[in-house]
Amino acid sequence: MTPEALNDALRSHPAALKLLSPLGLRAALPFGIPQQAADAAHCERQATIGQITDGTGLPLALPSLARCFSNLDPRESLLYTPQHGLARLRTVWRDHILASAGPGTPVSNPVVTAGITHAISICGELFTAPDRPLLVPLPYWDNYDTIVTMRTGAPIHTFDFFDGPAARTPRFNVAGLRHALDRLTGPATLLLNFPANPTGYSPLADEVEGPNGIVAAIVGHPHPLAVICDDAYEGLFFGPTTGPAAMYGRSVYGALARAADPNRHLICKVDGATKELVFFGGRVGFLTFSATGAAGDALAEKAAALIRSTISNGPAPSQAAVLHALESPTLAAEQEAVLSVLARRYRALKAALDEHGVPYWPFNSGCFCLLPLPEGMHAEEVRKRLIVEQSVGVIQIPQVNALRVAFCGIEAEDIPDLVERIGRVINAR
Amino acid sequence: MTPEALNDALRSHPAALKLLSPLGLRAALPFGIPQQAADAAHCERQATIGQITDGTGLPLALPSLARCFSNLDPRESLLYTPQHGLARLRTVWRDHILASAGPGTPVSNPVVTAGITHAISICGELFTAPDRPLLVPLPYWDNYDTIVTMRTGAPIHTFDFFDGPAARTPRFNVAGLRHALDRLTGPATLLLNFPANPTGYSPLADEVEGPNGIVAAIVGHPHPLAVICDDAYEGLFFGPTTGPAAMYGRSVYGALARAADPNRHLICKVDGATKELVFFGGRVGFLTFSATGAAGDALAEKAAALIRSTISNGPAPSQAAVLHALESPTLAAEQEAVLSVLARRYRALKAALDEHGVPYWPFNSGCFCLLPLPEGMHAEEVRKRLIVEQSVGVIQIPQVNALRVAFCGIEAEDIPDLVERIGRVINAR
Repeated sequence: MTPEALNDALRSHPAALKLLSPLGLRAALPFGIPQQAADAAHCERQATIGQITDGTGLPLALPSLARCFSNLDPRESLLYTPQHGLARLRTVWRDHILASAGPGTPVSNPVVTAGITHAISICGELFTAPDRPLLVPLPYWDNYDTIVTMRTGAPIHTFDFFDGPAARTPRFNVAGLRHALDRLTGPATLLLNFPANPTGYSPLADEVEGPNGIVAAIVGHPHPLAVICDDAYEGLFFGPTTGPAAMYGRSVYGALARAADPNRHLICKVDGATKELVFFGGRVGFLTFSATGAAGDALAEKAAALIRSTISNGPAPSQAAVLHALESPTLAAEQEAVLSVLARRYRALKAALDEHGVPYWPFNSGCFCLLPLPEGMHAEEVRKRLIVEQSVGVIQIPQVNALRVAFCGIEAEDIPDLVERIGRVINAR
Repeated sequence: MTPEALNDALRSHPAALKLLSPLGLRAALPFGIPQQAADAAHCERQATIGQITDGTGLPLALPSLARCFSNLDPRESLLYTPQHGLARLRTVWRDHILASAGPGTPVSNPVVTAGITHAISICGELFTAPDRPLLVPLPYWDNYDTIVTMRTGAPIHTFDFFDGPAARTPRFNVAGLRHALDRLTGPATLLLNFPANPTGYSPLADEVEGPNGIVAAIVGHPHPLAVICDDAYEGLFFGPTTGPAAMYGRSVYGALARAADPNRHLICKVDGATKELVFFGGRVGFLTFSATGAAGDALAEKAAALIRSTISNGPAPSQAAVLHALESPTLAAEQEAVLSVLARRYRALKAALDEHGVPYWPFNSGCFCLLPLPEGMHAEEVRKRLIVEQSVGVIQIPQVNALRVAFCGIEAEDIPDLVERIGRVINAR
């Protein structure tokens, strides 16, 4: 479709049109080779696409390469996937989203991306620009700087993630979110990443719903707002499910998409196989919009145009493998087993931090916890000392002078030793 | 490194600095999580990166997914690759380039990209901008419009690919290239795609070298010029190797890189596994520069920054499979077998076109040939008639009112029938 036709199709979701950046407005798939090839898919003589095949659609596979994928059909592993991703994979992932988001949630047909970062980057290109800021809680994953500020020139606005100091068991800073939104006067994008990198925090039930929750703060915002729900760590919840610290325990996408006003809001969900299927190297992510029907399809085509103009199409072996896994009857049990390993590590980490008196920000989910450093200690210096003196690798978070500890790659029985080593440096004074 | 430090490192290749777009100038990898994780790679306690592993570096693989890659080590298939791509794959591909480019050719350490389009797109972002045009021979692959004009806003300038009408057996239009270069007064990018899509033409020996060749035309250009050698179809040569129509028979990258002046020229090679290893769905491409030493490394880091800000890193199973294939002792024989199948189809196509009196532009390589349409016939109408009336799928090339026929997906014995069907429509009057 032409950009004009796509933009016209967004009339049923006016916020989307108000939110698109100049690149987002001109993004469109021309009537090019993939479209013409699809047109001729059922012809007896297929001379459209430049794939080396045997005339019946089977690739002329090189055995030295194909044997790496002997459990996949060569058509799945060696040939191009569509720009939008495998059709069946999109359907299955949409069902996966609907199952957790709840009935009545508007969900477009997901576009398959080359990993979750790619889905965020596409949102960045669609919605941010030098006069279209990105709002994120601080601290945030440092790659947002590269995706947004370096690439699109958009400024990043922040508000404090927590509503108080670490020692007082703070909560997610909904008031800070409200104040930051109040300062926005034009189209903007808000990114919410729960479970969060680097804090490892997911909001509690009353931080999402109710009059003082995230949903109410966003729905009340009077200007066009795209909300990116970065659900990279979806499902990795370890905190309590009942009581005063009960977690909301699912993506905020569903509640936001149901409450959003299409005149002002567009909610985007980015998620994928990276963590949910322990497939870090696969590069299979998804981008889904709260716009449905023709508007949802138009946004998906704009995303596909950005895919066509960067990587042309996504990795076929990875998409095939993810589809096989999602259709496996044993997948849920396999995921449960990984989740229980991570939950054991989570509990071991909390216990060890308490035992060794190492201060930490609240964490209840994901792969990380965040350790605030005492006044006068410098995160980069502590990071280097931990490598040299303790043979411990952690990530420095200069945004809040803290250390990020990834507990997803350390066995539970080794965690007390890890914390003891960290404590030797942090508590040395 | 900071953008300033990277740009400073380009002083040994001044053209690179003159050629970078605003995005190219600010592209740089911050000292982020991947760099800090690499720093701590040898620590006893690794709490840097958010990968779900068993504490010894093995992923906690889900069997339903991992069994799709049972011939790859789970660390190869399931974990992140570096932003620049697998180190060993870069080395092996550099040797592969050097083997055909010839001794003395400056070759940077290749960056692995998510397919060949991705390498072109990175060049587009590094070098093109609204005031930095892209020059290409006409006709050209239509995705260049999406990669360049849609994405970076750069205009595309063209010159006729052939130096005369199809009926007179024309040659590559070096004079047209010279005139088009003469009209450029500032930094610009030239893209040369041989074997070409959609013409299927590769230049003859004297069209590349000698006083009236491509190399001389480019080397004589007085303004900063980036040259992208789009070698997607490298190695697929079927024309004569001796006599007056003898093909040059290799990438023009080597000759250009050796002759280029670092004050004015930067030669970029984009190639990959897509066609060379019949791995269309893999998304493994490479981007290599004629800048070496610190300048080559700085350009590679800028490319890696663009990768980090779009897809974060490339598909691991695909990179692992390509590396395995490149290190297989039987690979050359396997490629030879595919090449001989394609050569048979090429000869069958030429013979059938001659027999049925279907006019064609010269073609000697790659996957395609291009059929000019008689005056008054409209490419899109003919394409549709071929689908409906003849059950034949081809691609329309409106740039020159022609049809592109892909012979890489049709068995040699079916090609006469294909051409007969096409002839029925084209020669109907």
